[in-house]
Amino acid sequence: MEPFEIHILGCGSALPTTRHNASAQIIKIGNKQFMVDCGEGTQVQLRRNHIHFSFINHIFISHLHGDHCFGLIGLISTFGLLGRTAPLHIYADPMLEELMKPQIEFFCKGMHYPLFFHGIDTTRHQTIYEDNTITVETLPLRHRIPCCGFLFREKPKRRHLLGDVANFYNIPAYMRQSIKDGADYTTPEGEIIKNNRLTKDADPSRSYAYCSDTAPCNNSEFLRGVDLLYHEATFADSEKERAAQTFHSTAKQAAQTASDAGVKKLVIGHYSSRYETPSTLLAEARELFSNTIAATEGDIIRI
Amino acid sequence: MEPFEIHILGCGSALPTTRHNASAQIIKIGNKQFMVDCGEGTQVQLRRNHIHFSFINHIFISHLHGDHCFGLIGLISTFGLLGRTAPLHIYADPMLEELMKPQIEFFCKGMHYPLFFHGIDTTRHQTIYEDNTITVETLPLRHRIPCCGFLFREKPKRRHLLGDVANFYNIPAYMRQSIKDGADYTTPEGEIIKNNRLTKDADPSRSYAYCSDTAPCNNSEFLRGVDLLYHEATFADSEKERAAQTFHSTAKQAAQTASDAGVKKLVIGHYSSRYETPSTLLAEARELFSNTIAATEGDIIRI
Repeated sequence: MEPFEIHILGCGSALPTTRHNASAQIIKIGNKQFMVDCGEGTQVQLRRNHIHFSFINHIFISHLHGDHCFGLIGLISTFGLLGRTAPLHIYADPMLEELMKPQIEFFCKGMHYPLFFHGIDTTRHQTIYEDNTITVETLPLRHRIPCCGFLFREKPKRRHLLGDVANFYNIPAYMRQSIKDGADYTTPEGEIIKNNRLTKDADPSRSYAYCSDTAPCNNSEFLRGVDLLYHEATFADSEKERAAQTFHSTAKQAAQTASDAGVKKLVIGHYSSRYETPSTLLAEARELFSNTIAATEGDIIRI
Repeated sequence: MEPFEIHILGCGSALPTTRHNASAQIIKIGNKQFMVDCGEGTQVQLRRNHIHFSFINHIFISHLHGDHCFGLIGLISTFGLLGRTAPLHIYADPMLEELMKPQIEFFCKGMHYPLFFHGIDTTRHQTIYEDNTITVETLPLRHRIPCCGFLFREKPKRRHLLGDVANFYNIPAYMRQSIKDGADYTTPEGEIIKNNRLTKDADPSRSYAYCSDTAPCNNSEFLRGVDLLYHEATFADSEKERAAQTFHSTAKQAAQTASDAGVKKLVIGHYSSRYETPSTLLAEARELFSNTIAATEGDIIRI
């Protein structure tokens, strides 16, 4: 199967520490690369993780808190310095364009690539990106300001043609695509060979959901059965009041969300700077949802 | 003597690398801390170098290229999150205030400290900051956009009162300050004790100049005899045409400036990302000016 990888560039929260970077991820699906959030320092994290700048064409911003978007201006500017010509698409609350336009006009004069801002309505679940193989949907979240998560989903794939059987029947090349799409094959003699004798099941369509920042919210219906859920777990259970006040989640609440939605695997992140390590957060999440891991910068999580 | 230290937080240039951070320094003089330039990632560099955020009250920005100021919004925002109440003063081209105001209003709502932008005319040599012990002067530089360096200078200090002599003459406490300022002492019997018998020379008044970014320019008169000069050395001699085109300096040109002005020591920085190490740059500078060192992140250079 083609790669479907989450590269963790930053999984800290608002206050700077030397242990974590501000929020940013690269989602690699096949030969495509998508960025989710872009906190300060993301461009250096891309370098550190050997991710090619030129493959990044779509950036999704969950919300307009600095630790999720202050790295954008530097990245946009560096793309310009590197002579980029390919369009760059940024999906975010419409306010971002208004805030960044004057800076881009001033700092990125003479930039040779087009930059498109796509305003998103964070309160609605909708498909905001689609190409031949994947879709990206918004996941409304519950934070202090407008905020949404993102659900990356592979489209249904073609069935696998069984090479031996295809050769046995001498199936011509021009008919093979329709058979992968489910068609039967009729031999020159008029015999109908059922598709299930010619093909085996397609690879599963994988999915990844990013939910940060948010208080617990009812989005099980959208998260149902996803392969991997990245969910913020800013606080331990002992700080659940602070979590509620600031519209964040505890590790336990993240695990409850994963459990309610029946996701296959949970990765927690967005740790408060008060925690030296995420061990307490991880232990608390695992009590409720055992297939949980704790994100670390540099991690590549494969689906 | 009280400390006079330059903490190098970043000495890379515009393109991000994992070897260097974007430009930023802390100048510690006595118990005061000044920041010069604030590239992306500076707040994490402050943490890494154990520099207290709350002691930073004055930030001087040389010019409005991203690698010298993209870290400001994150720092200003973090100061707010940390509950800062002390005023923060930023000295920069007046355009910076215009560009940042909308972002600050949006991202730093409810911030409890006053923020003052002081517009500076980068084309003139003038004193832009003064307190009881130091002054900061602008140094006009020659770059693609308005740009100036900064000269930190201790004011003349008081002479040292010789304890033994003062006790011998029983000089009352209220007269000691004027003697440190150079006055003679008249004993109750009318004998005049000359100041040079009562005191020894004051500590020297130290000075530090920051010159980045710039093509070679005639500022020897302002740099004359400074203790330490930080000068950009973006390129090696083999790239001197590129240096001229982009209004940067070669290491050799930085050394020539140091030599012409008779500074005591030179530290080079702002290395182009093409150099894996600054060794060539350092060697080329030392050919002309032997007392040269190459800046590295984390360095503390004491004057």
